[in-house]
Amino acid sequence: MTRRGLLIILSSPSGAGKSTLARALRKWDETLRFSVSATTRPPRAGEVDGTDYFFVPVEDFQRQVADGDMLEHARVFENYYGSPKAPVAEAIDAGRDVLFDIDWQGAQQISNSALQDHVLSIFILPPSIPELHRRLVSRGQDDAEVIEKRMQKSWDEISHWDGYDYVLVNDDLATTEDRLKTIITAERLRASQQPALVDHVRKLQTEFEDRA
Amino acid sequence: MTRRGLLIILSSPSGAGKSTLARALRKWDETLRFSVSATTRPPRAGEVDGTDYFFVPVEDFQRQVADGDMLEHARVFENYYGSPKAPVAEAIDAGRDVLFDIDWQGAQQISNSALQDHVLSIFILPPSIPELHRRLVSRGQDDAEVIEKRMQKSWDEISHWDGYDYVLVNDDLATTEDRLKTIITAERLRASQQPALVDHVRKLQTEFEDRA
Repeated sequence: MTRRGLLIILSSPSGAGKSTLARALRKWDETLRFSVSATTRPPRAGEVDGTDYFFVPVEDFQRQVADGDMLEHARVFENYYGSPKAPVAEAIDAGRDVLFDIDWQGAQQISNSALQDHVLSIFILPPSIPELHRRLVSRGQDDAEVIEKRMQKSWDEISHWDGYDYVLVNDDLATTEDRLKTIITAERLRASQQPALVDHVRKLQTEFEDRA
Repeated sequence: MTRRGLLIILSSPSGAGKSTLARALRKWDETLRFSVSATTRPPRAGEVDGTDYFFVPVEDFQRQVADGDMLEHARVFENYYGSPKAPVAEAIDAGRDVLFDIDWQGAQQISNSALQDHVLSIFILPPSIPELHRRLVSRGQDDAEVIEKRMQKSWDEISHWDGYDYVLVNDDLATTEDRLKTIITAERLRASQQPALVDHVRKLQTEFEDRA
């Protein structure tokens, strides 16, 4: 029997270190697929279509939702975000784990979907709000009004921390990275993730019955 | 809030390496408490009362069961085995994890007890039946009849492998030891094992409300 891949959901307020951690995980395990979200918002400077996001017109996005082609979707501010279903299904059916960088709304939808037995959800909390604010400001891209809007959105995200399988406080990036690797390694060892165990026990049974 | 300790159950047929692994875990983490079973069977050469087992008369054992002082108990061959409840309750209430070296009957009883949210159950499978037989023979303590009886008991144990959280095939002792450590480390990071997260989020909320 082939193992079905895990859907590994990473959620956090922006500024808690999630993107850095996601990059570290992909470097650690190159078999890990990354679910590229579709969005209706325009690309920011440096963002590449198909790598950072699939940038799609609103009509296309809404048609995909209507056709059931999105695993989850949510509206954030004026824009839509969603996870296209086809690449995820293909990866997990081939036994590969898929990493999702999505917010609590998407996490809830996937955790309540038909794939819920294969979901591993992890929430990253910042050590403090001043630190979160500092990280948002230090990006230097946004004015005070935009930063306040992001702070509000961050708090909305933090307030949904409960209900994730694992919640890590990102005090120290290296420690959090280690913990994520430990969690993923352990979850892959769960009996429910190892259908080949059935074959092994069948082999033991044959050996037991055939013993001299 | 204080964390409540985990009840870590290790089950396997005898000869699969469980005792060696349990010793390695206790060496790895000295905070880990070991649940010493009570038994009505007589001590074998070298066994120490209170360390290997609590050796108790049948009447004492039965009274403890009747008084609800056993977390689990089972009869194996002509003897009773059980896990006294008091030392376990004391340890987990103090936030310490407790390791149980018990069979599938005990594992089922604890997994269905009021403490089920704090149970982590792991089953160790042997790589093969000939290897299991070899290990039982190489102990050099028992005659062929006793060994055959142990083989039957081992198969009975193996046939209950299903239903454990984790199942590991002990091909290589060092690998299995690493996996056990990874699993325990990860399970301790579960949100449900970290009541202090509530305090952290409360602190974040205060900081968010008080921000300039």
